[in-house]
Amino acid sequence: MQLAHLNWQEAEKVLADPETLVVIPVGSTEQHGSVGPLGTDWLIPQELCRRLDGRMEKLLIAPVIPFGVATHHINFPGTIDLGLETMIKVMGAVFESLYRHGARRFAVINGHGGNDPAIEKAALEMYRRGSQVTLVNWWGIAPKLNPDWPTGHGDAQEAAAVMAFAPELVKSEWLVDNVVTPPSADFKQLHINTVLFEGAPVKVIREIRDTVNTGGLGGLESKFATREWGVAMMDGVTDWMVRYLEAFRRIDLPKKHWD
Amino acid sequence: MQLAHLNWQEAEKVLADPETLVVIPVGSTEQHGSVGPLGTDWLIPQELCRRLDGRMEKLLIAPVIPFGVATHHINFPGTIDLGLETMIKVMGAVFESLYRHGARRFAVINGHGGNDPAIEKAALEMYRRGSQVTLVNWWGIAPKLNPDWPTGHGDAQEAAAVMAFAPELVKSEWLVDNVVTPPSADFKQLHINTVLFEGAPVKVIREIRDTVNTGGLGGLESKFATREWGVAMMDGVTDWMVRYLEAFRRIDLPKKHWD
Amino acid sequence: MQLAHLNWQEAEKVLADPETLVVIPVGSTEQHGSVGPLGTDWLIPQELCRRLDGRMEKLLIAPVIPFGVATHHINFPGTIDLGLETMIKVMGAVFESLYRHGARRFAVINGHGGNDPAIEKAALEMYRRGSQVTLVNWWGIAPKLNPDWPTGHGDAQEAAAVMAFAPELVKSEWLVDNVVTPPSADFKQLHINTVLFEGAPVKVIREIRDTVNTGGLGGLESKFATREWGVAMMDGVTDWMVRYLEAFRRIDLPKKHWD
Amino acid sequence: MQLAHLNWQEAEKVLADPETLVVIPVGSTEQHGSVGPLGTDWLIPQELCRRLDGRMEKLLIAPVIPFGVATHHINFPGTIDLGLETMIKVMGAVFESLYRHGARRFAVINGHGGNDPAIEKAALEMYRRGSQVTLVNWWGIAPKLNPDWPTGHGDAQEAAAVMAFAPELVKSEWLVDNVVTPPSADFKQLHINTVLFEGAPVKVIREIRDTVNTGGLGGLESKFATREWGVAMMDGVTDWMVRYLEAFRRIDLPKKHWD
Amino acid sequence: MQLAHLNWQEAEKVLADPETLVVIPVGSTEQHGSVGPLGTDWLIPQELCRRLDGRMEKLLIAPVIPFGVATHHINFPGTIDLGLETMIKVMGAVFESLYRHGARRFAVINGHGGNDPAIEKAALEMYRRGSQVTLVNWWGIAPKLNPDWPTGHGDAQEAAAVMAFAPELVKSEWLVDNVVTPPSADFKQLHINTVLFEGAPVKVIREIRDTVNTGGLGGLESKFATREWGVAMMDGVTDWMVRYLEAFRRIDLPKKHWD
Amino acid sequence: MQLAHLNWQEAEKVLADPETLVVIPVGSTEQHGSVGPLGTDWLIPQELCRRLDGRMEKLLIAPVIPFGVATHHINFPGTIDLGLETMIKVMGAVFESLYRHGARRFAVINGHGGNDPAIEKAALEMYRRGSQVTLVNWWGIAPKLNPDWPTGHGDAQEAAAVMAFAPELVKSEWLVDNVVTPPSADFKQLHINTVLFEGAPVKVIREIRDTVNTGGLGGLESKFATREWGVAMMDGVTDWMVRYLEAFRRIDLPKKHWD
Repeated sequence: MQLAHLNWQEAEKVLADPETLVVIPVGSTEQHGSVGPLGTDWLIPQELCRRLDGRMEKLLIAPVIPFGVATHHINFPGTIDLGLETMIKVMGAVFESLYRHGARRFAVINGHGGNDPAIEKAALEMYRRGSQVTLVNWWGIAPKLNPDWPTGHGDAQEAAAVMAFAPELVKSEWLVDNVVTPPSADFKQLHINTVLFEGAPVKVIREIRDTVNTGGLGGLESKFATREWGVAMMDGVTDWMVRYLEAFRRIDLPKKHWD
Repeated sequence: MQLAHLNWQEAEKVLADPETLVVIPVGSTEQHGSVGPLGTDWLIPQELCRRLDGRMEKLLIAPVIPFGVATHHINFPGTIDLGLETMIKVMGAVFESLYRHGARRFAVINGHGGNDPAIEKAALEMYRRGSQVTLVNWWGIAPKLNPDWPTGHGDAQEAAAVMAFAPELVKSEWLVDNVVTPPSADFKQLHINTVLFEGAPVKVIREIRDTVNTGGLGGLESKFATREWGVAMMDGVTDWMVRYLEAFRRIDLPKKHWD
Repeated sequence: MQLAHLNWQEAEKVLADPETLVVIPVGSTEQHGSVGPLGTDWLIPQELCRRLDGRMEKLLIAPVIPFGVATHHINFPGTIDLGLETMIKVMGAVFESLYRHGARRFAVINGHGGNDPAIEKAALEMYRRGSQVTLVNWWGIAPKLNPDWPTGHGDAQEAAAVMAFAPELVKSEWLVDNVVTPPSADFKQLHINTVLFEGAPVKVIREIRDTVNTGGLGGLESKFATREWGVAMMDGVTDWMVRYLEAFRRIDLPKKHWD
Repeated sequence: MQLAHLNWQEAEKVLADPETLVVIPVGSTEQHGSVGPLGTDWLIPQELCRRLDGRMEKLLIAPVIPFGVATHHINFPGTIDLGLETMIKVMGAVFESLYRHGARRFAVINGHGGNDPAIEKAALEMYRRGSQVTLVNWWGIAPKLNPDWPTGHGDAQEAAAVMAFAPELVKSEWLVDNVVTPPSADFKQLHINTVLFEGAPVKVIREIRDTVNTGGLGGLESKFATREWGVAMMDGVTDWMVRYLEAFRRIDLPKKHWD
Repeated sequence: MQLAHLNWQEAEKVLADPETLVVIPVGSTEQHGSVGPLGTDWLIPQELCRRLDGRMEKLLIAPVIPFGVATHHINFPGTIDLGLETMIKVMGAVFESLYRHGARRFAVINGHGGNDPAIEKAALEMYRRGSQVTLVNWWGIAPKLNPDWPTGHGDAQEAAAVMAFAPELVKSEWLVDNVVTPPSADFKQLHINTVLFEGAPVKVIREIRDTVNTGGLGGLESKFATREWGVAMMDGVTDWMVRYLEAFRRIDLPKKHWD
Repeated sequence: MQLAHLNWQEAEKVLADPETLVVIPVGSTEQHGSVGPLGTDWLIPQELCRRLDGRMEKLLIAPVIPFGVATHHINFPGTIDLGLETMIKVMGAVFESLYRHGARRFAVINGHGGNDPAIEKAALEMYRRGSQVTLVNWWGIAPKLNPDWPTGHGDAQEAAAVMAFAPELVKSEWLVDNVVTPPSADFKQLHINTVLFEGAPVKVIREIRDTVNTGGLGGLESKFATREWGVAMMDGVTDWMVRYLEAFRRIDLPKKHWD
């Protein structure tokens, strides 16, 4: 059920139930390669939550947080960046507010890796107050379900996922090949900041726009995305999540460490 | 069009167009009296933006911001409070990001009065950089269109508005009469913090939960809400907004005051 | 009595008395139209406190806070702006310090509407710790005492008030008529950010200096101010405040919500 | 002249004059030993500014800042502590606002040593933007004018100064002898945090209330204060300041270092 | 050469040289499993810098930063945690200060993964001002040089590294086997927050002390550490770094994006 | 013993011992006149701690903090400035982390006067939680041991101290005479911001680089430094510190004031 659809008396009852699992979808509004929509990172978690909602009991879904830490992407038009410090505060405020009303089990369904440090920092505070928090990065699960579903930013995996529920948002007419520009000819660009030098990884921190023309990087190029992949992957990830969240819900709450 | 649905190349084009008007729906997730859903304050702006989208050209709609300044409401379960300082930062980040990409005309469609100081502070910064920002509080417009549509928090006006597009979210089975407890018998409680003493207004700052049992306060009680009111009001407000936003779009941009 | 005039042993005794009411005069140093002095917003609260001091028992008056949130006025010479975040911290520090020493009843006598969000945020914290705080905006009381005493920024009401106790500070030789420039011909400018479009209010956030030549706006123009008005109004407001503050003092303290 | 007494047009003229010297009186509301009033630290700078106002041209006096960094004193009733970080922001806001309007020469007349780091930090920013700022701690000047006027916190020097203009605020009926409790018998307590061990100074950071019963420390005890001392000292310090501020006003402005 | 060993005139010359590469060793003071010293994370970068210093020209080595983001480790005695926000500020201050003096090429030699988000955020700011920054996490390089040198926190890899230059700090007498406690029997604990559920990774955020008795986790247990491994690995990593840093130094500086 | 050299189990034991004294060496990386190395302010405390370590039991030495508040020095190349607010946070984090693990007695061995306000603020928090903290500024002790060892910034005293343990870092080939430029001919420059006017002290806040060519100021010029002085002074200060720290260790802990 959607938190936003309850009134406060209903929320009171749900939040007082120790089995309730609060699910917080989080993403980012940022460039997603040549064909992915700017909302990719929050549209997918929103869709996953919609699916979970139909299949699990006692799930309380918070409004999706559509902005995150997109500092490296800000040079691409349409990107919105909260910055790391503000994202820590936003995540903390959401956790704290619900904790105050009784929530003790939280699952963050996240669509953007740049949010991890902010979520983990805020989550650890919750743990110390006697809660359990899990951070579910869907893109990391998919390749374990099927090695043909590799991850990357603004690449085929995300485009395929969006195709599963909103195919019109993946605009093949904009498709161009990625042109990657590593810091120099001595390096191979692997991911956003990560390069290989003689086969070993190191980070060279740059604007992504100086690194890859489309903004997409790290996985299979978007041209390999198909709706079939997306449908199978979203189904697979949802199934996994249902099983996972039930297992997570059964973890004992920790003792309070401090306030 | 939805910003989240564009890819960055489309956003680049739209944001470079000096006639583009960026619309930012903002609200809060907080108690809304005995029958209103927690999402009232952002669901209504989201619905208004949906309607505007179908009727105006060159409108770029940002993802809805579902959280705001709800400090006075936090004692009611389900309420999420970002706090004033964090809300200033969130609004600033959204404005700044889009400004960087060329946006110069912004309309904030707001569903929650407590957000005003944060929005206005962030907006003034934009003005100083050569932009125009308008803050549209829909609830204040309605009573001018029809005096039978008075405003208030968690009251009939908001319930009626939600009935227009999601009647199932207004739960009449929870309806109870408001019991208002002023600070003492010497006072008449007018609105959240505002009381009358001998007919003159003054503020006594309290938790709303100590003031009114349902949380709704300031207007007509929720029991007077009807779907007919809501439909007429949402239509009326939308019509007004269409005319207003076209007029706003034609305002000259200010000179830059400073960076 | 003035807090600043006591030694700490006297303050200890006064602050331990549960009937003591702490009065905090707050204002702003900012433009006040063509004839009003920059200190208008704190000189009036200071004068009101002086009058209250002579008429009420167990009133502990804090030093006047002469600066506030004047962000919209900063383009007018002589204006000093603390900004919203710093004002929240200043108000919080004053409340917290006195709370620590036993104060539980606070009345903020405020001369500047822009301070309200900061005062209310800090005040709510105090309420949660078991205190009562009232925010008294004198300018809103006057029109209820006499409809001929309408309010506005840098206008006749404030000028009249200053004339009551420091007539030499209202400089009629600088008097010019207000020339108001709304955002465009489609709008009627009502107050600092508020305009009317087809009779309904909306905010267009601008520098005041771009809106009105003198800076005064919202009420009766300063040329209508008279000393007689000011004297009667200050007397009337003081009388009302004496009765009000005694009523406020009798409100029960809330239970502590949290620390 | 008082900034608060000017209207903005007058302020505009004064602040545009390169010879104008802005004077900012700053203090603290905090315990001042057994007989000194809580306002000692700002009442004295306010009085000094009043005297300077009558003797110098082109002096623009800001409203007195009655609160400062009083963290070590907060355990004494009546003390108000802004804390170091907030005081940095307050000082910065006052400087910045006036700088924006043209002020380039600032003299801070300070009554409280704990404010120094905040003032100096904010002042250095001004210097870098092409201004000159002086910090005048009156209590350090007096002993150079007359070695019989030694300094200390909440001691005879400050009591004498207050006696010069408000003798009724120094309450001899509360006079008790200081009982100083050093950290242990191995130490001699010299000043607030400073102790001597084998004749060499080191700091042991404690609450002042645990160090000295009255809160006064560091100089001659308050019982030695006389009105004659105060009158002669205030006259002497004022005379010195008049000469000093004229010399300060003639210092060349620095080139801008950065913004 | 060590920055701290130069005087400012020497530093001026070195920092003005466009070929100068500033090296900043960073770590953490935190638990390192059963046998690793608390300083592991900064002692290793310090040692690597010492070695680089002897082999490369125009290397300017900043003082080692011995504290970092150790929030997850704070329950283990001796751990010092700056927290993410303060670490961002510290890294920013170091970069900014040296940038002001002319530095444009920076290599952060980091010993603690938790510092990455802070370093990357501060580094991106530098890039935008026309600098190049690399973040070198030595532990990630080693396994690429030799697959028998796998990484992990507080495990054999770090213990071996310390054995190479300070074998007395690795205290085998404290060696106990790791006892790992996953959130529940449904999970396999992989790394600090990362667990596997049905083979796919997800994060469950907990205090490390609740996860593993020794604090060491993620790689080969410390009992497998040998001095030989350490010596070979430190030599190999140093050699790689020498080649890498020379390649990094030759990367073109970016154009300034913004200030 | 060095905290960084212990493992966490050893640290647990040491920090649980109520007699343990935690020693925190702190300094700054900043200009030190014509011949002093940039690390002067932290190299000396580090050396003093090394000496104490060999002579006292139950001394737990934290890693040296090599950066501090150097805002006034930032115009000299090689200077690194954390700024006052960040230094408060760093000191607070170090104290808090160790307090959490049981430490209650702290001695900060400081090499830089600009750090005092940050250290004292953080230290007072510790006192309020039941700890004792001392701030030992070595340069102020030396002149009391021998009046021929006068203090000053970047002058002979510091150069002599460094000569005692690292004579090669004091580079006589760079020696030039100080040329001091007071704000105007009316003033005598005494120390960084302090000038004399007619014999009385006042502060004029300027960049040091505009005040003295070398950056050294306030004491005896560096040319008078000798290794003999340094050796005798470091020995004398160490001896004094040994006696002092034992006396400090015997001070009773305060009761907790608040958390």
